Amino acid sequence: MFRGFWAETNQLMFICDRRSEKIDQIQQNPNAEACWYFTKTREQFRLRGQLSAITADTTAATLLEARRHLWQKISDNARLQFAWPQPKATRTENSDAFAPSAPNPQAPLDTFCALLLVPNEVDYLSLRGEPQDRMVYHLAEENWTSQNVNP
Amino acid sequence: MFRGFWAETNQLMFICDRRSEKIDQIQQNPNAEACWYFTKTREQFRLRGQLSAITADTTAATLLEARRHLWQKISDNARLQFAWPQPKATRTENSDAFAPSAPNPQAPLDTFCALLLVPNEVDYLSLRGEPQDRMVYHLAEENWTSQNVNP
Repeated sequence: MFRGFWAETNQLMFICDRRSEKIDQIQQNPNAEACWYFTKTREQFRLRGQLSAITADTTAATLLEARRHLWQKISDNARLQFAWPQPKATRTENSDAFAPSAPNPQAPLDTFCALLLVPNEVDYLSLRGEPQDRMVYHLAEENWTSQNVNP
Repeated sequence: MFRGFWAETNQLMFICDRRSEKIDQIQQNPNAEACWYFTKTREQFRLRGQLSAITADTTAATLLEARRHLWQKISDNARLQFAWPQPKATRTENSDAFAPSAPNPQAPLDTFCALLLVPNEVDYLSLRGEPQDRMVYHLAEENWTSQNVNP
């Protein structure tokens, strides 16, 4: 789920559990895409870039701020899940384990992880055209260029 | 877009253009997932497996049959796109290039590629439970096993 842009940047924010398989997968290969298709306008956006995971061990102060900001922004229920037992482990039978006390809404739990997607290419497709319109945008040295391409 | 199951198997079929970047990406890493989320029932299915691309150069007869079957199944309009100019190349100005004569609906064009996803793990999540229900299914030596896991 898209959690908004980080501050005044075009970096997309997501959250995940540090104990999730995603973390290992991102370390192995940080290339990622976020795709949206809008059924009404029949437009598709494919945002390609690099993902980075911001964990409790991250040292850069601005990144830690992004993580704290997200933690504060999500709902009480969403925060609670980060205090649940190990995801994907054999089901914990004790249901109390899924009813922990509410975590501090100011300070992220160690299991809370923020993901930042820094896009460097956007592939835009509009199915309305005959034939479809497709534009590719590239980031090179802080400037975006665009190219009209075949669908 | 999901194009159905191949014959009596549980292999998922998709199509793509051989000139698409997907083909190279699949060769580099065939691990793939198909995910569905059903908003009404609030259930998510994540099917993990290996993708294989069936092209005009594929030699296995049954695979070529799957490719031909898909080609025959798709619409005239869908088939036409495989006769269009190179996808993602600089836009072809000559609009005639996007109005080729209809390809033979029996014999796939060389650009037509079928993709088969052979699932070996299914991750099922139901958001209705409190906490959510999650089951993981694994394929090992032709048998599926299931495990009740933490969400």
